[in-house]
Amino acid sequence: MGENIGAAARAMMNFGLSDLRIVAPRDGWPNAKAHEMAARADTIIENATIFSTLPEALYDCHYALSTSARTRTQPLSYLTPRQAAMEALAHPGRTAFVFGQENNGLSNEDLAYCHAIITIPAAPINTSLNLAQCVNIVAYEWYNTQLTAPTLPPDVHEHATIGEAEALVSRLETLLATRDYFTQSHKPVQQQMLRRLIVENAFSSKDIKALHGIVKALASAERKSS
Amino acid sequence: MGENIGAAARAMMNFGLSDLRIVAPRDGWPNAKAHEMAARADTIIENATIFSTLPEALYDCHYALSTSARTRTQPLSYLTPRQAAMEALAHPGRTAFVFGQENNGLSNEDLAYCHAIITIPAAPINTSLNLAQCVNIVAYEWYNTQLTAPTLPPDVHEHATIGEAEALVSRLETLLATRDYFTQSHKPVQQQMLRRLIVENAFSSKDIKALHGIVKALASAERKSS
Repeated sequence: MGENIGAAARAMMNFGLSDLRIVAPRDGWPNAKAHEMAARADTIIENATIFSTLPEALYDCHYALSTSARTRTQPLSYLTPRQAAMEALAHPGRTAFVFGQENNGLSNEDLAYCHAIITIPAAPINTSLNLAQCVNIVAYEWYNTQLTAPTLPPDVHEHATIGEAEALVSRLETLLATRDYFTQSHKPVQQQMLRRLIVENAFSSKDIKALHGIVKALASAERKSS
Repeated sequence: MGENIGAAARAMMNFGLSDLRIVAPRDGWPNAKAHEMAARADTIIENATIFSTLPEALYDCHYALSTSARTRTQPLSYLTPRQAAMEALAHPGRTAFVFGQENNGLSNEDLAYCHAIITIPAAPINTSLNLAQCVNIVAYEWYNTQLTAPTLPPDVHEHATIGEAEALVSRLETLLATRDYFTQSHKPVQQQMLRRLIVENAFSSKDIKALHGIVKALASAERKSS
């Protein structure tokens, strides 16, 4: 909904965030309602970038935290908004805060690109917050935490981006598919597992390059002498 | 605006608050937009009570905390939302969170009924949050703080309500007016000072009764023998 995107942009501006990325907006883009609701934050709306899929939107991010109202079925850590802000600031590189659709939240496929889940503690009678409320609280906690956060040492490990990790996952998927690794009934689960193995570990760019070398070697034909 | 009231009700329900009091709603009451925006929180809208003035709305409250975007010209303490939640929980009796109009905030007259001001730290580029955002953050902090707050000892002092304090202030005002206490140019400032003296001190109901006795005595005619 345009109104939600506009209200989210407003909260972003209030709390010092500006890089808005939108995945497959339901009502197309640009959206007049989003502009209208954003009020003074309409520059954030104007500079928003649109992607078709979540991994494309996360290509240059190093760490992704997602809010999700789903029950705790994911093998991920669960953080409060305050803990999430601290984790974001403790991770070198670019962190993405990922917010799902109002009703459905994020799919398990999308959650496989995220490193942890943010749960906003709320009264049991109504735990469903709307998108703009979630953005407002997460951004508020981020702003307040970074006001007092210590400066990070430079990232000597050159943490890989989600885009670099995803390229390795895609390569593995292709190679494994031609080797009958995936069973018809379990393929989605196997793919998520694969993605988690690579995306959620804090591999450096160098690690990913090394893994590409290993994968390539494993996938190549055996030497005739052996 | 009805939409703001509805969104505020929604945030209240998310964070375990239910007693909504509205002072002089601009567009009258009931308000269809407020119902619509409240979604599942429409019971809060249905049970909301309407008052013409702020002191009437606060009559049975013991402690009042207000958000205000005004510059720091008031002789009150300034609290972050987290500190405000802790203060609210540390004060026995009923605490009111007071939110002003979107553009103007609260008047100085209204602020004289409040014990402290909540300021929400925000990015300097845009420090203006809308009403629903403010309610969302204050309610979120309240909910999270009370989850871990220790149980208060019973209030042995029987803290006076704002209504009790205000009755004393009114009486003083009337008596002082007939004694030319107020100067034409300073009357509003003098009234605010008077109100602060009584409302902001944590007088017990007994204290207020005693003060009524003192005021009555002071205002009565001198004894002939003196």
